[in-house]
Amino acid sequence: MSDQTKIILSESDLPKDWYNIQADLPYEMPPVLHPGTKQPVGPADLAPLFPMELIKQEVSRERWIAIPEPVREVYRLWRPTPLHRARRLEQELQTPAKIYYKNESVSPAGSHKPNTAVAQVFYNKLEGTRRIATETGAGQWGSALALACQMFGIECKVYMVRVSYDQKPYRRNLMETWGAKVVPSPSPDTAAGRAVLASDPNSPGSLGLAISEAVEDVVTNKVPSKYSLGSVLNHVLLHQTVVGLEARKQLELAGDTPDILIGCIGGGSNFGGFAFPFLPEKLKDKTSKMRVIAVEPAAAPSLTRGVYAYDFGDLSMMTPLIKMYTLGHGFIPAPIHAGGLRYHGMSPLVCELYRNGFIEARAVHQKATFEAGIQFARTEGILPAPESAHAIRVAIDEALRCREEGVSRTIVFNLSGHGHFDLSAYERYLNGKIEDYVLPESEIKKAQEALPVVP
Amino acid sequence: MSDQTKIILSESDLPKDWYNIQADLPYEMPPVLHPGTKQPVGPADLAPLFPMELIKQEVSRERWIAIPEPVREVYRLWRPTPLHRARRLEQELQTPAKIYYKNESVSPAGSHKPNTAVAQVFYNKLEGTRRIATETGAGQWGSALALACQMFGIECKVYMVRVSYDQKPYRRNLMETWGAKVVPSPSPDTAAGRAVLASDPNSPGSLGLAISEAVEDVVTNKVPSKYSLGSVLNHVLLHQTVVGLEARKQLELAGDTPDILIGCIGGGSNFGGFAFPFLPEKLKDKTSKMRVIAVEPAAAPSLTRGVYAYDFGDLSMMTPLIKMYTLGHGFIPAPIHAGGLRYHGMSPLVCELYRNGFIEARAVHQKATFEAGIQFARTEGILPAPESAHAIRVAIDEALRCREEGVSRTIVFNLSGHGHFDLSAYERYLNGKIEDYVLPESEIKKAQEALPVVP
Repeated sequence: MSDQTKIILSESDLPKDWYNIQADLPYEMPPVLHPGTKQPVGPADLAPLFPMELIKQEVSRERWIAIPEPVREVYRLWRPTPLHRARRLEQELQTPAKIYYKNESVSPAGSHKPNTAVAQVFYNKLEGTRRIATETGAGQWGSALALACQMFGIECKVYMVRVSYDQKPYRRNLMETWGAKVVPSPSPDTAAGRAVLASDPNSPGSLGLAISEAVEDVVTNKVPSKYSLGSVLNHVLLHQTVVGLEARKQLELAGDTPDILIGCIGGGSNFGGFAFPFLPEKLKDKTSKMRVIAVEPAAAPSLTRGVYAYDFGDLSMMTPLIKMYTLGHGFIPAPIHAGGLRYHGMSPLVCELYRNGFIEARAVHQKATFEAGIQFARTEGILPAPESAHAIRVAIDEALRCREEGVSRTIVFNLSGHGHFDLSAYERYLNGKIEDYVLPESEIKKAQEALPVVP
Repeated sequence: MSDQTKIILSESDLPKDWYNIQADLPYEMPPVLHPGTKQPVGPADLAPLFPMELIKQEVSRERWIAIPEPVREVYRLWRPTPLHRARRLEQELQTPAKIYYKNESVSPAGSHKPNTAVAQVFYNKLEGTRRIATETGAGQWGSALALACQMFGIECKVYMVRVSYDQKPYRRNLMETWGAKVVPSPSPDTAAGRAVLASDPNSPGSLGLAISEAVEDVVTNKVPSKYSLGSVLNHVLLHQTVVGLEARKQLELAGDTPDILIGCIGGGSNFGGFAFPFLPEKLKDKTSKMRVIAVEPAAAPSLTRGVYAYDFGDLSMMTPLIKMYTLGHGFIPAPIHAGGLRYHGMSPLVCELYRNGFIEARAVHQKATFEAGIQFARTEGILPAPESAHAIRVAIDEALRCREEGVSRTIVFNLSGHGHFDLSAYERYLNGKIEDYVLPESEIKKAQEALPVVP
């Protein structure tokens, strides 16, 4: 056992239930508020956008929620995913630490995103949805949803931020290969898009606008359509817990107990899915020594530099109000290459764990993450996504600390995806063209002046 | 067992030996000849280019050759690879056939190529080589060698055909991320490259020229350097047999016996590595009903339309003479998107099996392969390499025949790699811009007029 490089589960070990951390929280979650009335939203408010089963999951207190068999059937195309012991990286770092990583890069879309896309599409199918619209920035979420829609025979429409649509044709091609219809946002397909195009035909678009287009599409389309979100919401993190449930079983098989768990955070879904299944004991006993670290980019440091307040999830102020650590919904993060981490807010489940001292947060700069990504690729082989390289950076830092202190610890991180579509970013790094963005306090202050007033 | 989607081996099932089919051939292999003397080459002729252990493997008759432990250690980063039952594809085709595929796309380089790259670099390291030079066309081989060199701390220099260097920057970036030095060929680094640049500074280059540059580099460099080849040679196919050895064990675990084995062929290495371990029984008993099909592109149909003759392995007539099915070393295949299959000749081991009736060959056109690739991606999720889509095409055709005939057969093919770096080709297909190349007999005749005269 002790000389294994990968810990592999058989298909019979694929989790049968998702883990719902809401069952074990020793505090109340703040309610989500209606943006108009500022009263807690009810199921009816969300029904135009989401199928009822997902709305129920959003507020469920059941500890275990059964994974429907058709979802497990699609999961089995690539799950359970391997847990690797990073022996070559350990050797390179000359650390007494044991480093493990959960490899979510093996999904057809190349990241953890399909774990929730498949579940969301399944419930939509069950409730009669015939098409789903969504937005995508760099394209990770759009491609996961395109894959899932193809698997269940649902039409998929993706509003892709124009600048990415033009600069990242491979991600767009991947969605099209899986049968999705992809349009650049702003698009002529919605009133919101047409308005922007009228004033600026060459607008590069934004994620906020793309969300507006997708939501407008859903509520105005004649074919029964729903909207789908790839992170932040409770049900999304719930579906991602297959990652941590498998990893926990794999570590048990390896005979190890984690001292430090690490994941990167943008909206919080890969971190939450990976870390939550390890938390029940710590939620009961706060003195537990297990550390859990959420790693965010210094260019979008919602946990480490944001304020805790009610805010919109999107730039266009269309979503319900969520209590979270936020940089302000008007905050536009610098164009770092980890596009999946460029978000002003954070999953409320992650925020409350942080506020209550159950997890730590760390912000890292771009150059240091690429350095870690390259070191990982040169020892373990796999080219990591720039997002995942944030987790690798902190895993390496902690392993080096073990060396300094002469202490062996078990460090486990989530490799949320591969970097096959991010190679131009690696090229820029190798050519010395990657810069660190120093975020002035004034910029955060300014964005936070526009925070909504909640009584 | 019967409802499994993937058959997974544990690390303890990783093969300990490669299978050498030369031990079981019921015929003699024709000798490889020196291009000058036209006498059989000896080890001394090859020693400037290859380490002695690989030269020995090239002619060994030992049935099993032990895989060195440091090679197995690197293999374990991604091996054993899964064998998938393509249930969703079967369902889509409404076929009574069982379809399995061996998934070699999970290696860090995204194909089967690292299986031999790692072995070759290991033996080089053992014998004191400090740098390795090679050529690459589309970049599959170059990236596998770059990865392997990084794993063993050997310098890697890749001469990449200029047109690919410019058009496929992602593959180049991948090699650089793994620490290789990549130059466009023609390059100013060699006399051969300089000569071409002098007459045509904008030359797009060719694989033949890139081979000349790599070989010149190796024999003139002051640092002890060797050359490395990614297909065709016996030792390359030997290393690839880990694929078939694992697949055979996995099918046994699934309780199935293959009726039809399918692989695509360019130089023959993924096909050979996959199929050879299934052949011992058939080599003893030719009446065995198991069929083995090598699939080549209609644009480079060496087995189905080539002549059986001694020919050079390269355009520049620098290699030894090999008895094989060849389109003529001067034959330049049309620029189909399956760059890895654009080769005028074929592995002599594969050629002799074909000539002696142990395997079949089939040529398929480009549009039909992309159609199959898309059908596979939309059912099984994984985006296949255009090369691998050739095998998928024939697997689907055979499964459809099973439906017509109302017969269940077990069809197993090798998914040699993913298509993450080939998405622009898929885009062209989806936009109706992919054409089939009809190869006139006159073109083959013309190239074969230049075949060398061997007494």
